[in-house]
Amino acid sequence: MANRLVAAVRTFVSERRIAGPVVAAVSGGADSVALLRALREAGCDVVVAHVNHQLRGAESDADEAFVSDLARALDVPFHSTRLAIPQNENLEAAARRLRYEWLEEIAGATGTIATGHTADDQAETVLHRMIRGTGLQGLRGIVAIKFSRDAESSERSAVGHPHMTVSHSINSRPALGSEDSASRLNGRVVRPMLAVTRNDVLEYLHALGQPFRIDSSNADPRFTRNRIRQELLPLLRSFNPEIVSVLGRLAEQASEAFDFVEGEAMRLLSIAERPRAGAMLIFDKAALETVSPLFVRELFRLVWRRENWPMNAMTFDHWNRLANLVVGDYPGQVSLRGVGNIVQIVKTI
Amino acid sequence: MANRLVAAVRTFVSERRIAGPVVAAVSGGADSVALLRALREAGCDVVVAHVNHQLRGAESDADEAFVSDLARALDVPFHSTRLAIPQNENLEAAARRLRYEWLEEIAGATGTIATGHTADDQAETVLHRMIRGTGLQGLRGIVAIKFSRDAESSERSAVGHPHMTVSHSINSRPALGSEDSASRLNGRVVRPMLAVTRNDVLEYLHALGQPFRIDSSNADPRFTRNRIRQELLPLLRSFNPEIVSVLGRLAEQASEAFDFVEGEAMRLLSIAERPRAGAMLIFDKAALETVSPLFVRELFRLVWRRENWPMNAMTFDHWNRLANLVVGDYPGQVSLRGVGNIVQIVKTI
Repeated sequence: MANRLVAAVRTFVSERRIAGPVVAAVSGGADSVALLRALREAGCDVVVAHVNHQLRGAESDADEAFVSDLARALDVPFHSTRLAIPQNENLEAAARRLRYEWLEEIAGATGTIATGHTADDQAETVLHRMIRGTGLQGLRGIVAIKFSRDAESSERSAVGHPHMTVSHSINSRPALGSEDSASRLNGRVVRPMLAVTRNDVLEYLHALGQPFRIDSSNADPRFTRNRIRQELLPLLRSFNPEIVSVLGRLAEQASEAFDFVEGEAMRLLSIAERPRAGAMLIFDKAALETVSPLFVRELFRLVWRRENWPMNAMTFDHWNRLANLVVGDYPGQVSLRGVGNIVQIVKTI
Repeated sequence: MANRLVAAVRTFVSERRIAGPVVAAVSGGADSVALLRALREAGCDVVVAHVNHQLRGAESDADEAFVSDLARALDVPFHSTRLAIPQNENLEAAARRLRYEWLEEIAGATGTIATGHTADDQAETVLHRMIRGTGLQGLRGIVAIKFSRDAESSERSAVGHPHMTVSHSINSRPALGSEDSASRLNGRVVRPMLAVTRNDVLEYLHALGQPFRIDSSNADPRFTRNRIRQELLPLLRSFNPEIVSVLGRLAEQASEAFDFVEGEAMRLLSIAERPRAGAMLIFDKAALETVSPLFVRELFRLVWRRENWPMNAMTFDHWNRLANLVVGDYPGQVSLRGVGNIVQIVKTI
């Protein structure tokens, strides 16, 4: 079958050299069901993983039964889990974190996690980030391939708790065997359908006669994401019918530019930072002053993440002041001082 | 009067060290009338310039009379001109080019041209570019301060004829005295109200009891720009009331990132290019291969502009292939060949 979606998945799998088991995250919705079918057609060694968050009662249970039946019909292994959502945390972010942790457990050391994100998801994500004001960094949207640790954090940074992400990923990850999370670089997350539109998905499933589940909460206009899908994207499409691919290309460009900036910032950090004096971080002033503030700002973002300093209260303006080495106090009891050719940064608790 | 708009203009004028006469481009609409009043309040040596494009008949003439009366009432010099729109060219782009040429003539060697673009204009421009798919470069939007040659070209590049811009600016600019256009770097265009919202403008004019003209074509939904203002921005505001400033910050970030990339591309071009052999451009392959395609792509954009090669037919994909030095034919009879450690690019006509 020369289906466009299958061809895209096949190309992705071969170009990215995906080998070993592929854990397909299947909710039962159209996108993930299409992913599962296409991965099978592309000859992958697929494992189905379904997370039941029990957020929609009987509907959630019926989703689970549907995916279980589908896995049996396709003769592929099926894993499911019930994950409760902890209190006092952003519902969506918490659910996402737990989901990825469990998927990693199934993927183990050699497997790849695949999700059914489409070009439409990408467009919605880019718009969501644009509206929230996450800047160039946010416009990167969803990345096609990523180590799972990063995939989780890059998604979570959109929900406003970037510091929690790192805190979790690096320090408080539940023990999964004896491995250190930082060394488990095999647990990648891939999105083989990121260039495929939702229309392609529906056509493919229709051609297969393959049913899928519809998540009733996807129509709830209280969720920003649903309003983006139902109101904003249709309006933008009336301006430019190709808006989904336009936003996809923008995400690619933003990703390319941001990756470069982040890479330079890392390099600069390794050059500009001196050994810390107790709680005090010390930087070479001249090294920071000779580069564009663009990189210095990103360098300080890296430092904030590494130190687990709160980033929520840091505004665009605060980052800009840091980037220009403006002496003074910053949110979260952090202060910057200049002494001779040295920049000191310290956080008092 | 401690008005916010006047304060913003005053700060702009002092921080950017605007000295000498300021030619305010005044259409008679709210934004430009507010600009004129605020520049006067800020103590600038203002000259009013009004262009009558005669696109709306009696309405256009009434606009001109209104601005003339206002200038007389404020006791500032008034200049006006009637500029016909040439045929066979994008109407808006042509009008804009002629307008800036005439403004430069009035500003002469020492003056500054000021326009009344607001934060709302910036947001609309960013959205317009995003919809058209002009990428990161387009997201820069309107810049606050620019040499007039560039201001013109950066605006014109949004209307799809970037090659015409350069052709015009560098080669076919009408003689204005004996000066070479490239050396006339004093003729700057500034936008002192780029951080000021349309609401601020209306409040300011209301407080002054200052009337203004309403351009009937601003309500015409056949113009994309008007639909962005009347449909898209209000919808986005329902997601985030701060959308105008969010888009303004995005433009700043895109501008910062793009300026860096363009600067590096220029530097790379000066390193990688060898003397041309007739019509053939020659580049050092190793120099291009050792940097991110991000810069190589921009390098080739600079080359295309310099050579006046048509850019309309160049897609995102074409630029990407160029950036990766993919041998083959490109739109406009341009081809790329690799010979040993050399990249040859030639346009056959």
